[in-house]
Formats: sequence, structure tokens, C-alpha cells
Amino acid sequence: MRVDAATQEQLFIGIDGGGTKCRATIYSPTHGVLGTGLGGPANPLHGLERTLESIIMSTQQALRDASMNLHSVHELVAGLGLAGVNLPSLYEQISGWQHPFKKMYLTTDLHTACIGAHEGQDGAVIITGTGSCGYVTVQGKSKSYGGHGFAQGDKGSGAWLGLEALKAVLLDLDGLGPHTQLTAMFTLHFNTQSAMVIAEQMAGQPSSSYAKLARMVLDAAQQGDPLATEIVKDGARYISMMAKRLLALEPPRLSMIGGLAEPLQPWLDADIAARVATPKQPPELGAVYFAQQSLAQE
Amino acid sequence: MRVDAATQEQLFIGIDGGGTKCRATIYSPTHGVLGTGLGGPANPLHGLERTLESIIMSTQQALRDASMNLHSVHELVAGLGLAGVNLPSLYEQISGWQHPFKKMYLTTDLHTACIGAHEGQDGAVIITGTGSCGYVTVQGKSKSYGGHGFAQGDKGSGAWLGLEALKAVLLDLDGLGPHTQLTAMFTLHFNTQSAMVIAEQMAGQPSSSYAKLARMVLDAAQQGDPLATEIVKDGARYISMMAKRLLALEPPRLSMIGGLAEPLQPWLDADIAARVATPKQPPELGAVYFAQQSLAQE
Repeated sequence: MRVDAATQEQLFIGIDGGGTKCRATIYSPTHGVLGTGLGGPANPLHGLERTLESIIMSTQQALRDASMNLHSVHELVAGLGLAGVNLPSLYEQISGWQHPFKKMYLTTDLHTACIGAHEGQDGAVIITGTGSCGYVTVQGKSKSYGGHGFAQGDKGSGAWLGLEALKAVLLDLDGLGPHTQLTAMFTLHFNTQSAMVIAEQMAGQPSSSYAKLARMVLDAAQQGDPLATEIVKDGARYISMMAKRLLALEPPRLSMIGGLAEPLQPWLDADIAARVATPKQPPELGAVYFAQQSLAQE
Repeated sequence: MRVDAATQEQLFIGIDGGGTKCRATIYSPTHGVLGTGLGGPANPLHGLERTLESIIMSTQQALRDASMNLHSVHELVAGLGLAGVNLPSLYEQISGWQHPFKKMYLTTDLHTACIGAHEGQDGAVIITGTGSCGYVTVQGKSKSYGGHGFAQGDKGSGAWLGLEALKAVLLDLDGLGPHTQLTAMFTLHFNTQSAMVIAEQMAGQPSSSYAKLARMVLDAAQQGDPLATEIVKDGARYISMMAKRLLALEPPRLSMIGGLAEPLQPWLDADIAARVATPKQPPELGAVYFAQQSLAQE
């Protein structure tokens, strides 16, 4: 679909950069989504060059998907949601980029996820996937919690669940910790009874590898294994506590996003679980709203 | 000092490879230590090439220190204690090395540390430095505990203490965990009040960087901070439990080695602490004893 040249309306591109992929959406205020694109990893904490490449890649794909000329990139107003740009040094590095867009507005991936989930309105989000963090924005005031990364932060996340379970299994295999059903699941998964061989396979692995173990922890907890249950409850307790802090700012809505959002919900405090609303739009649409709002404020 | 050529005695070289350095000692059964050498990192888990380079480097230095010709390397019987060679694949890779020695006997760094500590006799050791592990050898029977690496194992180690403290400080700074004196110590140490900036500085750091935080945890515990005390007690409880397992095999002696051996001792169970004896010789001498014993058994 081509935009009606007569309306001369401003087109936007919303870009959501993450540790494994980068999504771009070209958006027309009158016609909605015109095209989408997918690029590689775009977490500037893991490499600035690669992030910028992924942004360009996903942008070009979105332009093609929208049947637009690649040169049209110069006419787009871009909203970018990226991890790590709450750090002043990274914010400045990316702001200083000789980007191809007409204008570029930069914020955190948390911010764009939040305004996406609430379709541009105020609200709060908790993201529990490989990592975990929370964000709330109410009347221009915003606050974030967690998101301190593996293995020092991200409690209640997939990587955290996986690591806590692995620690328990290694202790159990050494006879230096309580027995848990997780041990049978892990020795089957890794196809070895040796703690050392399991440890070797996991040593130096990225957080995403630990997150892949989370499903077993949730299953064992659901089957009533005391140790797995304690791990999941401890993680859920933290997420509930974070939710309470977010709700203290009285956001109109609270959403949970990420692969663990649904499986963790039954473990949350009942009053928190009751408050969780479905996210309305994805983060890349949040990045579009952010660009629109930023442009309107100029 | 030169060896009396008339005695024609067999000279040995003991090599202890570790994550940060490699130590070599040339030993004469009649004259004792002839020379020592120091090389770079020699943990085959972190790179086989580099390990072999460090072994050669420390060997050449030891030969020079002993005023011996570099060609004399071919006359030495070598004992090697290296991390990771409990894994069959690594053991085979290093055994297959075209080494320059007359003979080479390979075992784990735990084994050589243990027989060094007990001057070639049976005994048990607990190593608590950056990592933690235990080893016992009694009448040809041996067993090891822990040593599963950061962040999944090595409970009670320096890196573990540092990580647990960092997690607690990040929760405290977010207002999502109990207050601890560690927070004031860490914000001073990192020269920032921002959890995110601290998290960034530590993200992806090796275990040795976490171990550098351990001193603050021990200090805070000694000053009575409840959270730091709980962390140190939890770590010490694990070390005490490991010691009990080692002592179950009835080794004549138990030693503790590594930077945390002394500061952890007051936190151990009293009956364990009372059993801890000073290590008699360093691991590289243990590697010499191992080479002597292996040669004698052929």
C-alpha cells in the first residue's frame, strides 16, 4: 500500500532493539502499519556496530515490505527503543550516530514497551523473559526497577530460574544439598549423571542458555517438587514486590510482557495477578507512539 | 647449584597451572628445589594453546633459575597439575601433547594441591579462593566436591561472596530488598549511587572481579551487618558440610588453601575449624611428589 501523496502526511518508523533481534514497523497515522522488518541483535551493550547494522537491516526490510523506495528512509521520523541507553554514555553514542532518518528520537526499550502495551497512554509494564525488569510512566514521571542483568540481577527471570535450579542440581549431585526432582530432569536433559560435565556445558554460556532451563523448573514446581517450588515462589515474590512499587505511582494499567509473563502469573500475589492486563500493542508500535509524541512536543 | 653429575639422579619438574599463572619447580631428590619459574595463565578450560605456552615459559624460567641448559628439559620427569583434566576430552588432549620432557604425568590441580599440602601423604584439602572445591585422597581412593565454576557453583568462594553481595546491594538500591551496610560500601567502592551503573561495570566480568568484592562482605559481616553475616554464614555452612564429607573418608590431615582459607575459618563449624592443619608444601611440590610416585609405580 502506498501513502496518498496528496495528504503529504508524515510517516513514522518504530524500532525495537533487543538482544536477539530488532523489529521495525513503518506506520502511517492515517493508514496504520505499512510494513515491518526484522534484523539481528540490537543490544548496544553487546556491540554498538552490530546494533546500528541491525537497525539499518530491519529498516530496509520494512521499507521493502511497504513497497517503498529505500531512499524514503530520509523522510521517516524514527522512534528507537534500545536497552542500555539509560546509561548516559550509550545514549550519547547512539544520539551522535549519523542516522539516515529525517529525525530520530531515542529512548529505552522499557519505555517503548510500556507505551506500546498501553497504546501510547500512561501505564506500567513488567518484562519477564530471559531477564526481568519493571517500568512505569505516569504524567511524564517514570521509574524503572531491576534489569541489572545476568547473573547479578534479573530475579524471577528465565535465566535466573535456570541458574538457581542448576545450582541446586549441582549441589544435589554432590550430595551437598537437598534432593530435588530437578536433578532427574537435568541429568536427562544434559544426558549425563556427572555434575562436572553439566557444569562444563553451562560454563560461560549466555543468559539465554540458562533461560532454556526455566521450563523444567516451572514444570517441577507445578508437580510439587519442594525445591523447585521454593525457587519459583522466590522469583514470583520479587515480581509481585516490583509490581507493588509500580502500582504505587497509580498507573491506569499494568501489563506483563515476555515468555515468562503467562507461566509466572499463577505464582504472583492474587491482588497483583488480578491487576495484570493484556498488552495492547508491541514495543515497535510503542516506538512509533514515542516518535509521534516527541515530534508533537517540538 | 648444579646437580652432582656423578649421582646421575633423576631430576623432576612440578608444574601447577592455574587461571592466572603457572608455577614450575625443578626438584632434586637429594638437593631439593633447584629453581623455580613463573608463567602466564594455564587453565586449559580457557585455552589449550595458551596453557601449553605458559607451561613452556615457566619451565624455561625454572631451568634458567637452576642455571641449567634449556636442552636439559628433555631429561626432566614432569608432574602436571591442571584444572579441567578430570574431563576425559581435556585429559586426552593434553596427554597427546608432544611435550619436551623425558616423561610427563598428568593429574588435576586439586590432586597436586592435596599431595603438596600433605607432603606426598594422604589427606584432604579445601580450596577457597576465587572458586571453591574439595578433594580427598586416602589409600589410592580419591573424591572431589564442588569446583563447578562461577556463577553456578563455587559456593563459599570469593566470587560467590562477591556475587551474592552485589545481588543484595542492587535489590537494596532498588528498594526491593532489605537494607544492608554493604550498599554504602559498594556505592563508595564503585563511586556511584546508581544500581544500573554498578550493574554495568560488573556485567560480563570474570569471576576474579567478583572475588575482589569479597573482602567488603567479610568486613561487613565482622561488623555485624545481618545480611552480610547471612551470606558469609551460608557460604561457610557449605564449606563445613564439604569438610565433613571429606573427613568421612578418614584422611589423616585436612588443609585449607587459597585467599579465603584464613578469613573463612572463624565462620566454620568449630569441630571443622579445629581439624584444619597448615599446608606443608605448595601445589607445584605436590606435582613433583606426584611425578615421583607415578615413576616409582611403573
